[in-house]
Amino acid sequence: MARVIRLTLEYDGAGFCGWQTNPGVRTVQGVLQEAVRRMTREPELKVYGASRTDAGVHAAGQVASFETGTTIPTTGFLRGLNGMLPGDLAVVDCREEIEGFHARHSSVGKRYRYTILNRAVRSPLAAARSWYVRRPLELDAMAEGARHLVGEHDFSAFRATGCSAATPVKELLAVGIRRAPGDMVSIEVVGSAFLKYMVRNIVGTLVDIGRGRFERDWTARLLRTGRRSDAGPTAPPQGLCLVEVFYSRAELEAAAAEVA
Amino acid sequence: MARVIRLTLEYDGAGFCGWQTNPGVRTVQGVLQEAVRRMTREPELKVYGASRTDAGVHAAGQVASFETGTTIPTTGFLRGLNGMLPGDLAVVDCREEIEGFHARHSSVGKRYRYTILNRAVRSPLAAARSWYVRRPLELDAMAEGARHLVGEHDFSAFRATGCSAATPVKELLAVGIRRAPGDMVSIEVVGSAFLKYMVRNIVGTLVDIGRGRFERDWTARLLRTGRRSDAGPTAPPQGLCLVEVFYSRAELEAAAAEVA
Repeated sequence: MARVIRLTLEYDGAGFCGWQTNPGVRTVQGVLQEAVRRMTREPELKVYGASRTDAGVHAAGQVASFETGTTIPTTGFLRGLNGMLPGDLAVVDCREEIEGFHARHSSVGKRYRYTILNRAVRSPLAAARSWYVRRPLELDAMAEGARHLVGEHDFSAFRATGCSAATPVKELLAVGIRRAPGDMVSIEVVGSAFLKYMVRNIVGTLVDIGRGRFERDWTARLLRTGRRSDAGPTAPPQGLCLVEVFYSRAELEAAAAEVA
Repeated sequence: MARVIRLTLEYDGAGFCGWQTNPGVRTVQGVLQEAVRRMTREPELKVYGASRTDAGVHAAGQVASFETGTTIPTTGFLRGLNGMLPGDLAVVDCREEIEGFHARHSSVGKRYRYTILNRAVRSPLAAARSWYVRRPLELDAMAEGARHLVGEHDFSAFRATGCSAATPVKELLAVGIRRAPGDMVSIEVVGSAFLKYMVRNIVGTLVDIGRGRFERDWTARLLRTGRRSDAGPTAPPQGLCLVEVFYSRAELEAAAAEVA
């Protein structure tokens, strides 16, 4: 009988054209699946990911799963895969799951962190992991803008063209905005599911509120009109990191309480 | 009369063959000096740095100085240079100094930070800024090893071949070793002056103490024998960052008190 293996992954998104396998380009799923197939000698094996992260987006806690007929122990997968994978992709945890577990279908929510460098001059040491915003950001205004988004809403105004989600209605459980050391602003978002570019479009809009381009309640209006063209720009990918994927409502709500 | 300009620099060391100008290779001094010369139209202008950082070593607060006959204001240098410099090098502060100021000769000390990732699996997101050490480190032992090094000593055992310093006797004011978020260990070092590879050789030796290869008082013995071959390996460059350069004894001592 097939076993289900669950992997927790960390990756630097800079060198990947996103998660999803795509012929001719380097993707996380492609590189990982190839390594798992070589290790298991199961050439048809498929690896599924909880989040289809975009090109350039990082992950500290992406979750992937696959079924295998082998008896390789989880510690064998952890060491073996880390030996085969390139420096910008690693397995940080490996465990066996119950039958029927699927990294994406079983997940009930995710936590993302977006990092902004907010100071007068750019930073070479922060550039690969943040969006550089020169104009001082008013965090109170951003937090008020974010409050309108929490709850179950039609997020069409924050949805990229080409998004394949069945419905634009998603539940956002919490948005936490804080100053962090080194002139950083961290925006943490916890939600049950996300549309394509949704976090980056929310961040782009909140930053426009924070620099005074929009009023604090602009987000409430965007939820009503649903027009993408009225919202802010898509924040660049290198500031975004998938922090955690949740498989129980209790875990999801605990994370939301922590972030809020 | 010539004005003296002082720049504070941040750079990602990965793309540079160190600080010092060297024909045919990309160095921080070379790239910066070229930009300053273009801006001032003074083709003979020389830029001096406080620290000749090695290839791959980062800086958050390197200091450089140059003399110019131009009347370009400091804000003009700050903006103009940041517009010309590549993404991995930036000027974070610019001010005018008194006659005779020299980034290196006027400095009385420096603060470096060395970052180690200490966990069971490697980290793609931390790899560019840390040394990955798998074996759990005993920080108490490292701190005791470090205590022997504080003070004025002959640091020959921590000196690289090819070091051009006039004397191996240097004053180390403080070494602070702490766990930091994300399974990191941070080693901060404050000293009046440093030999070539001295910080990296100290870190390599302290890590060997922390993983049990050497006794806690091995550092005391190394100071007595002065033999480089008895000490630990040279820690890799990507974990090291020049944090700050000091131009008064009071500043230097305040930093030492903070780190200790």
